[in-house]
Amino acid sequence: MEKKELLYEGKAKRVYCTTDKNTVWLEYKDSATAFNGEKKAQIAGKGRLNNEITSLLFSKLAESGIQSHFIRKISENEQLVQKVDIIPLEVIVRNVAAGSFSRRLGVEEGQKLKRTLIEFCLKDDELGDPLITDDHIDILGIATDSEVASLKERALEVNKALSALFEEIGVQLVDFKLEFGKDEAGNILLADEVSPDTCRLWDISTNEKLDKDVFRRDLGNLTKAYETILERLGGRTHV
Amino acid sequence: MEKKELLYEGKAKRVYCTTDKNTVWLEYKDSATAFNGEKKAQIAGKGRLNNEITSLLFSKLAESGIQSHFIRKISENEQLVQKVDIIPLEVIVRNVAAGSFSRRLGVEEGQKLKRTLIEFCLKDDELGDPLITDDHIDILGIATDSEVASLKERALEVNKALSALFEEIGVQLVDFKLEFGKDEAGNILLADEVSPDTCRLWDISTNEKLDKDVFRRDLGNLTKAYETILERLGGRTHV
Repeated sequence: MEKKELLYEGKAKRVYCTTDKNTVWLEYKDSATAFNGEKKAQIAGKGRLNNEITSLLFSKLAESGIQSHFIRKISENEQLVQKVDIIPLEVIVRNVAAGSFSRRLGVEEGQKLKRTLIEFCLKDDELGDPLITDDHIDILGIATDSEVASLKERALEVNKALSALFEEIGVQLVDFKLEFGKDEAGNILLADEVSPDTCRLWDISTNEKLDKDVFRRDLGNLTKAYETILERLGGRTHV
Repeated sequence: MEKKELLYEGKAKRVYCTTDKNTVWLEYKDSATAFNGEKKAQIAGKGRLNNEITSLLFSKLAESGIQSHFIRKISENEQLVQKVDIIPLEVIVRNVAAGSFSRRLGVEEGQKLKRTLIEFCLKDDELGDPLITDDHIDILGIATDSEVASLKERALEVNKALSALFEEIGVQLVDFKLEFGKDEAGNILLADEVSPDTCRLWDISTNEKLDKDVFRRDLGNLTKAYETILERLGGRTHV
């Protein structure tokens, strides 16, 4: 497998073609961005950490029967994944009120929700990734009703598996963002990444934030927080 | 029936108690506000026009079997209505892309939607009346799933009746906002007002805006636009 031309550069990753048309080469960057790109920084080691954590989590999800685009990690900050067309929706799963949910709806951060909430945002940087309803998704022709139902079902499965996994390492999975894509045959696959960039992770004992809020809210050392997650996840695998 | 103490003052109306505990006295004000109160003006005659138009439309809706809180008009700018507890949701019905829908989702204003869209916003001025999903409504405990289903059904009925009524007078019902309330027995009733303050109304031949966008967007004489609507609606009743 060889790395070919750059296909797309996002805020956190570069996507390259490979010699296989169904495989793409992901390079995790050291950039940290927040508030739709308004806050930016280079943080050495962040790319490696997110690549390691995502590779680990996608492997663990596969063990729970949840397929993703992930094929394998090929270097500290690179992985091979199946090529998919990303469905332009951010699928947000919330167990506890935080972030934009708290801000938009006036609910105190940290309040446990009576059940898991799934939100969809339109993936569109220019529009600021606005919240959309199932009816918007249908009317804008973004996905069919049955695709939306499937995304919700998969998101809840991911939540169940990830929540258990994080609980075992003393971390509360507060909320997270997923992206899905379609492969050449039209199958929907979990895609993008699952990392402290895309999850809110709070230490169960101390409530310490171990995710990108450390950067968003200037709470301290980002890589230290991400290292803690990787260490605890990795630690578990070597017990 | 006597007017008693002020119960509540909103941006466009004052609500008074009466000698009957199940009846309130509404006074339509001459204030125009937009953008969550950021733009304000006093426009002589606006209260009268909205009272006249709402009274007329609620009467016509009743003829189509759609009950509202409306009892009767008692003066140029006052009406008696049944006392209800307002459900804190703005129920927005859209036939054509415009306003916040166009802005938030990048859809050109004037584009006909493939089907009627219903949106809910949380009625909360401090939060800027944010868009919310059915799941938010459930999780925040604002209404039950069956109440939400009933609100949608009623909103579509109102849309059908109002669209036909406006079409007869050469006006396209682009979108509108409804509010509902519960009476003492827990019955859900259409409430608030239905007027050019709460509807987007475009002349079918000229596309001229005959609604509050005249004020929001500084398009000319607001009372002239509202007079046009009242005249055409009234005209029709005398044919």
